Amino acid sequence: MTPTTPRDDEPSSPRSPVVMRDVAKAAGVSVATVSHVVNDNPRARIGQAARERVRRAIEELGYRPNALAKTLVTGSSSFIGLVADAIATTPFAGQIIQGAQDEAWKHGYVLLVANTGGNEAAEEQAIAMMLEHKVRGILYSTWFHRAVTPPAALAETDAVLVGCYSEDSSLQAVVPDEVQGGRTATQLLLDAGHRRIAFINTSHPSPAQTGRLEGYRELLERAGVGYDPALVVEATSDQEGGYEAAMRVLEHDVTAVFCHNDRVAMGLYDAARDRSLRVPDDLAVVGFDDQEVISAHLRPPLTTVALPHYDLGAAGVRLLLGIDEPTAGTARLVACPPVVRSSV
Amino acid sequence: MTPTTPRDDEPSSPRSPVVMRDVAKAAGVSVATVSHVVNDNPRARIGQAARERVRRAIEELGYRPNALAKTLVTGSSSFIGLVADAIATTPFAGQIIQGAQDEAWKHGYVLLVANTGGNEAAEEQAIAMMLEHKVRGILYSTWFHRAVTPPAALAETDAVLVGCYSEDSSLQAVVPDEVQGGRTATQLLLDAGHRRIAFINTSHPSPAQTGRLEGYRELLERAGVGYDPALVVEATSDQEGGYEAAMRVLEHDVTAVFCHNDRVAMGLYDAARDRSLRVPDDLAVVGFDDQEVISAHLRPPLTTVALPHYDLGAAGVRLLLGIDEPTAGTARLVACPPVVRSSV
Repeated sequence: MTPTTPRDDEPSSPRSPVVMRDVAKAAGVSVATVSHVVNDNPRARIGQAARERVRRAIEELGYRPNALAKTLVTGSSSFIGLVADAIATTPFAGQIIQGAQDEAWKHGYVLLVANTGGNEAAEEQAIAMMLEHKVRGILYSTWFHRAVTPPAALAETDAVLVGCYSEDSSLQAVVPDEVQGGRTATQLLLDAGHRRIAFINTSHPSPAQTGRLEGYRELLERAGVGYDPALVVEATSDQEGGYEAAMRVLEHDVTAVFCHNDRVAMGLYDAARDRSLRVPDDLAVVGFDDQEVISAHLRPPLTTVALPHYDLGAAGVRLLLGIDEPTAGTARLVACPPVVRSSV
Repeated sequence: MTPTTPRDDEPSSPRSPVVMRDVAKAAGVSVATVSHVVNDNPRARIGQAARERVRRAIEELGYRPNALAKTLVTGSSSFIGLVADAIATTPFAGQIIQGAQDEAWKHGYVLLVANTGGNEAAEEQAIAMMLEHKVRGILYSTWFHRAVTPPAALAETDAVLVGCYSEDSSLQAVVPDEVQGGRTATQLLLDAGHRRIAFINTSHPSPAQTGRLEGYRELLERAGVGYDPALVVEATSDQEGGYEAAMRVLEHDVTAVFCHNDRVAMGLYDAARDRSLRVPDDLAVVGFDDQEVISAHLRPPLTTVALPHYDLGAAGVRLLLGIDEPTAGTARLVACPPVVRSSV
């Protein structure tokens, strides 16, 4: 990067903004007329020619209407708030933002994002800020599926829980379908002919823990293979957990392992390599989450089930805006799709 | 989650908001007086007792002033925009948001975040939206360090580039110090007594490619070890690249490898395991980035150099607000600190 002086035709300080008066002058109309055109005032009678001149002047001058003033005039704001506990510290939940943002933009809304680290004071501050900016509503999201006690201030606006739910169902919620995800993972292994299928589950109590187990069990029973509790072990839900659990799993003479998540699968890969077991020839492995930086780049690339972060964010916005009908008394479930690579 | 009906004392629809009139009534003052107190109007003369009554009423009633109206009165907005190419699809650059947000909040600003996927039309739309909301300024950030041609609309406000820079230095920029990072990685290996140190660099031309190499070379020469170009190989900057490059590196009888990033190091670990080489006893390894979900959980945990995403976001806000002095004609460098684990 070579230091240079700014070019003459490109001022280094911001240009002075074009105001409504400039547009009115260029179009040969009054400021009030420009205001009516900008705010789509249905009660104002403005001729087609004048309307056209105003539009052309806006385009030529690069006039930007003040969205905040428009909000005060119309009484409705173009903001949707997203309060998240840990977008920044979680490596893949950022897709929640992307899904919510894309859906919000589609309907003319802008996303106000606050990452609170789960800190109560920061949450309170974030929600207060959003309410002061007259948001249309607030999405309250967590990076892993769990029950929450929603902050009381959420009652002051429309709110939807994303990736979490409240025990008393006082707020609409949208969460991943853990049971279907567990079935999907198990189906991938059954389809490949496996019958002795272990499950390394997390030791952390959560909807993911109970839901994925339920799906695994349900499908094994339905397929006539039967459920053997000896083939289910619990471990911490990271690489270290998967490595350590391998020992307990492999003594049961299994040909396939469903892992609670991709990190557990990564630890299992290391343990298999230490025992000269080849994936998938000696041992088939299915993960969960589709944490791409790991799953797509293991040797061999991992077949897994994706957490639908993007869809959760988008579904949250659709519920908030009333585009999707709410499901009474229960959370809306979003499907966890299979991602087939080379480990089965 | 059991479906339940809402409790009687908790209405399921939002409460009707407290307005300024309610505060005025409770405090026994005029609406104008409440407005002056809320907007800190220095020209208004209000007695200490009345001011106290208003403050107490605001607190008791839970009144939330309208931040948008305040913006129109004071002429300055409380927003800072952050346009990012890929927060959501990159597993760790989200820390840029966190750093920018924390620093913005500290100074009374709120972050408007837009993730554009690097798409030009989405960038234009995001910047237009931010300008319409009268942002104090815009941070334009990229998830990896590179030269950019800033969108023309950035000239309409104050702007700072974060994690990128423009060739003509027309905008202030803050970027990671790649050269110092390369020195730091090499120093970790020299300090442990290594002299035959290979470098698996990325094959992708970038400031990271040239900067980290420059730091590696500079330090080897300064330490009297000398620079041997045969020990530098290029590879794709992912696990597959590291695995493949291992062959070319290990034939040179090296005792240590500096990897362009943690993903490359993960691939090198797999290749070392295939050759029954133990890390760090047979081969010391240093990564770069500190992509924690990988680096902290490899076997053994990886010693690396961190990309200072959080600090980049915070430094960007400080430059934008004029809290830090700009460096004329060149980008501000943020240090990449060592993260010592068990691979050296």
